Amino acid sequence: MFDLYIANKNYSSWSLRPWVLMKALNIPFKEHVMAFEGGNGASRDTFLRFSPSGLVPCLVDGETAVWDSLAIVEYIAEQHARVWPKEATIRAWARSASAEMHSGFSTLRNECPMNCGVRVTLQDVSAGLRADLARLDRLWQEGLSRFGGPYLAGDEFTAVDAFYAPVVFRVQTFGLPLSEASNAYAKSLLTLPAMQAWYQAALDEKWREPNHEADTLKHSTLTADYRNA
Amino acid sequence: MFDLYIANKNYSSWSLRPWVLMKALNIPFKEHVMAFEGGNGASRDTFLRFSPSGLVPCLVDGETAVWDSLAIVEYIAEQHARVWPKEATIRAWARSASAEMHSGFSTLRNECPMNCGVRVTLQDVSAGLRADLARLDRLWQEGLSRFGGPYLAGDEFTAVDAFYAPVVFRVQTFGLPLSEASNAYAKSLLTLPAMQAWYQAALDEKWREPNHEADTLKHSTLTADYRNA
Ligand SMILES: N[C@@H](CCC(=O)N[C@@H](CS)C(=O)NCC(=O)O)C(=O)O
Ligand SMILES: N[C@@H](CCC(=O)N[C@@H](CS)C(=O)NCC(=O)O)C(=O)O
Repeated sequence: MFDLYIANKNYSSWSLRPWVLMKALNIPFKEHVMAFEGGNGASRDTFLRFSPSGLVPCLVDGETAVWDSLAIVEYIAEQHARVWPKEATIRAWARSASAEMHSGFSTLRNECPMNCGVRVTLQDVSAGLRADLARLDRLWQEGLSRFGGPYLAGDEFTAVDAFYAPVVFRVQTFGLPLSEASNAYAKSLLTLPAMQAWYQAALDEKWREPNHEADTLKHSTLTADYRNA
Repeated sequence: MFDLYIANKNYSSWSLRPWVLMKALNIPFKEHVMAFEGGNGASRDTFLRFSPSGLVPCLVDGETAVWDSLAIVEYIAEQHARVWPKEATIRAWARSASAEMHSGFSTLRNECPMNCGVRVTLQDVSAGLRADLARLDRLWQEGLSRFGGPYLAGDEFTAVDAFYAPVVFRVQTFGLPLSEASNAYAKSLLTLPAMQAWYQAALDEKWREPNHEADTLKHSTLTADYRNA
């Protein structure tokens, strides 16, 4: 049985990826939720007890620690079918899109941090954010139209959807302006049982981490908070 | 035959990864070097002609474009042995280390950009850079001691060495302070024929890109420039 260490479901975008993938694929694992003690690496000393980088997510399988979300996905893919698309060209597309997210979209990440339970209005859409959103929209539309939908790489949920699942929560929180096709994809992903379960758990968390809260409102104004007090 | 699109060998750290991997493993490919037209995405329109993200590296295999360095490595790994370590636990370690580099070490990347041909002295080592270097050193030492060296994951060059190859050039350019074991690893990687070939080609490039040059000297003073005028 895998052990998966993650942080607050409300904030931890990287944690969501392997979690939602394993839930969607019915791969059993035991989750361990560790609350952030502050943003920007403040939790490293605590996280170092189970994660060699001091970052989450970290998957532990017996003696083996896999301490990065993309590496976790590849580790799972070696043992379970359906993690990546079956067809080689579509798999290459899905891996490219996932790795592009892993290393890129830094403005989207910084200016629109994941904060599942709130709704905000963006005060200004910076040039960098506009560029990230344009690329995101182009990428999603390409996948949806080339492989037929309703998922990014065809008619099954795969790792590339898991990699963009945190963005889907951001679209909801920040009301990000996207094309109709991309909005429809985001909306439908939010209805998945695995996404609903994560969202509900995020709403139920009692933790409020000041740095993550402040980062959310850096370029935005709060319009609603659906978290249970 | 693969086509690999890359940018200036002197500057393009992400391009080096699949290039040095394929050279070290004797995998044939045709290289296409496209000069940067400026930093920070200025070349996107040109790069979009062959790369869907407008970024390099991009591997083209017939109809299939693979547009991210980590996705390229996984694509090659499906067709060639020896890309990742054979043993599952060591492979998980190598993939974790590679994906951690792909998504992290942002201070090291920003404050010490790759510029193979010059030597500089760092004026100040920021707290963020110190943290990145401490993590880098710990990671390299762990790999070298756990798997016996001389490479990060044992006695063969694998993708994890390719992923840290750009850091090795940064160690040389910026004289980064590391442990003896890590320094010895960096030194020995620089002697590999594939690394030597890349380095020589970088020295021979006539292009000087002002943004990359300015970024190199943001926290550092120039002490030598070995590039051929
Ligand atoms: N390469 C990592 C990045 C993980 C990452 O940055 N995790 C953040 C949380 S989402 C973290 O652990 N931060 C520690 C902290 O803020 O103290 C992955 O995708 O797994
Ligand atoms: N996810 C990418 C990141 C690639 C990346 O950022 N490439 C830079 C060059 S090393 C680029 O193409 N920049 C375009 C520009 O500066 O105009 C990968 O590893 O392949």
